[in-house]
Amino acid sequence: MKKPIKVTITGAAGNIGYALAFRVAAGDVFGPDQPVILRLMELPMTMGPLGGVGMEMEDCAFPLVHDVVLTDDPKIGFRDTNYVLLVGAKPRTKGMERKDLITENARIFSTQGRAINEHAARDVRVMVVGNPANTNAMIAAANAPDLPKERFTAMARLDHNRAIGMLAKKTNRLAADVRRMIVWGNHSPTMHPDLTHCTVGGTPALDLVSLDWAIDHMIPTVQRRGAAVIEARGASSAASAAGSVVDHVRDWFLGTPEDDWVSMSVHSDGSYGITEGLVYSFPVTCKNGDYHIVQGLEVTDFGKTRMKVTEKELLEEREVVADLL
Amino acid sequence: MKKPIKVTITGAAGNIGYALAFRVAAGDVFGPDQPVILRLMELPMTMGPLGGVGMEMEDCAFPLVHDVVLTDDPKIGFRDTNYVLLVGAKPRTKGMERKDLITENARIFSTQGRAINEHAARDVRVMVVGNPANTNAMIAAANAPDLPKERFTAMARLDHNRAIGMLAKKTNRLAADVRRMIVWGNHSPTMHPDLTHCTVGGTPALDLVSLDWAIDHMIPTVQRRGAAVIEARGASSAASAAGSVVDHVRDWFLGTPEDDWVSMSVHSDGSYGITEGLVYSFPVTCKNGDYHIVQGLEVTDFGKTRMKVTEKELLEEREVVADLL
Repeated sequence: MKKPIKVTITGAAGNIGYALAFRVAAGDVFGPDQPVILRLMELPMTMGPLGGVGMEMEDCAFPLVHDVVLTDDPKIGFRDTNYVLLVGAKPRTKGMERKDLITENARIFSTQGRAINEHAARDVRVMVVGNPANTNAMIAAANAPDLPKERFTAMARLDHNRAIGMLAKKTNRLAADVRRMIVWGNHSPTMHPDLTHCTVGGTPALDLVSLDWAIDHMIPTVQRRGAAVIEARGASSAASAAGSVVDHVRDWFLGTPEDDWVSMSVHSDGSYGITEGLVYSFPVTCKNGDYHIVQGLEVTDFGKTRMKVTEKELLEEREVVADLL
Repeated sequence: MKKPIKVTITGAAGNIGYALAFRVAAGDVFGPDQPVILRLMELPMTMGPLGGVGMEMEDCAFPLVHDVVLTDDPKIGFRDTNYVLLVGAKPRTKGMERKDLITENARIFSTQGRAINEHAARDVRVMVVGNPANTNAMIAAANAPDLPKERFTAMARLDHNRAIGMLAKKTNRLAADVRRMIVWGNHSPTMHPDLTHCTVGGTPALDLVSLDWAIDHMIPTVQRRGAAVIEARGASSAASAAGSVVDHVRDWFLGTPEDDWVSMSVHSDGSYGITEGLVYSFPVTCKNGDYHIVQGLEVTDFGKTRMKVTEKELLEEREVVADLL
């Protein structure tokens, strides 16, 4: 039997964490023959509800689960862990400035970066979900000097999947027919969904839909999808956010298909002229637990402008948290 | 490519339905190469939130999902469907007598039985989750005269999995080591978890734990687990209930392992002296989409008494709804 993988999820009693933990336990991330040990983390004040999540985990009798640890102690939660899914974050409350949100989360993620640096396995891979995800990932990496910065990534897959879903619907095809979608930049309304290289059933997407539709309808809809879901459900995206975490980590672990790539927010190495050190969403391929930014893709002038807008936002976020880097 | 299976989920915007729909879409029930078409049903007043669930489904870009239909119309929801998961039910509200709960749900499930009879594919298989699940399944079957009664089943798997989880924890083994658990009877506090034939890592469970522990601790804990989860989480079991639906339907569809069985509430054929026609949880094996009640198991005198208690409750429930059978 394979050695269990240790997976830590923060914010595990929250809506996304709750949707995510059971999918990891079911084998949806690491495959149907890979045992897992789950460390579910919460704040001291939410350990009560986390106890309920732990009961439900036991009640599922998951064949792949070798242990479930519930803790509010980073020493226990991150000890020797192989994958860290940083879902918990301080949400924006009424009247809070975006700058304050960034600053408060920066403190949390710098602490978590230090704890991961100290306690996690040396092969640890980290995915940040809690917003502002890109900047939080940059901060966590900066506070984990003994670990390669490349191991700290952030969620862009929800936007990537949303763009695929919209394009499939518009062209009346299956999501499975869509290849080579890209979402560039920040996980925020400045993100740039890009159809330039995208195909649907082998046909270039821009032969099937107009650039006007993409610019005037698809891009703004993807950018504002989160708010639309809240309005309809009366609750924010949980299952779809969890689904995109599943997809991001599964592809990182098991690899991307030969003829496709995915969007992941990763440490910029200067590719496409994006400032080094920002955590920025690029098209990447994954193999053997590593990712590589796809090189040499043509970018239109419109795309270049949009990529700079979302880069500028990340540079501004970096300014706000400069003292923690 | 395989022909898509049509799956209908009622109460799809509720907590269990929400946790369940995404696991079906991800391939956890019918396997990683079996496309599905989902029909998500709600009441007219909850079609708004269901719209949000539909958006999140699109946003997941599930490769196996060929279509998602959102409807409050049974003609559309059940048309040619192959699997029906009846999750939605009227919950017990404050001050409501159990008898009133049974009567009100009986009306709902008789209507649904008629609609399934009229519109579903002739190979349709039904699982009832909404409580009182066993009696609801009996009523639905009685109102679907053109379909074999054996195709209407109800959830016992949550109790079965809970018993496995508790025993694994007590014996400090993995859930995967536990075999041949049985939960007999009604999905209610009268259910009877039975360790007589159960093994843990090949050793008889009752060589590892005392009968007193089983009777005084395990059985009551399994019976009252739902309430304990509500107290801890501040919300009822959703992910674990959905997980047990996944397990029930997956095993029915893909089969049970050679050396094991599962607990399913199915139409009694008189096995173990249980009144014919009740929907009662028995140990079953599944193969090629059919299930068979495991025959010839020894039952202790204590077990026989407990099996009669839970049977009696089901007979009383049948009395209450006699006019709908």
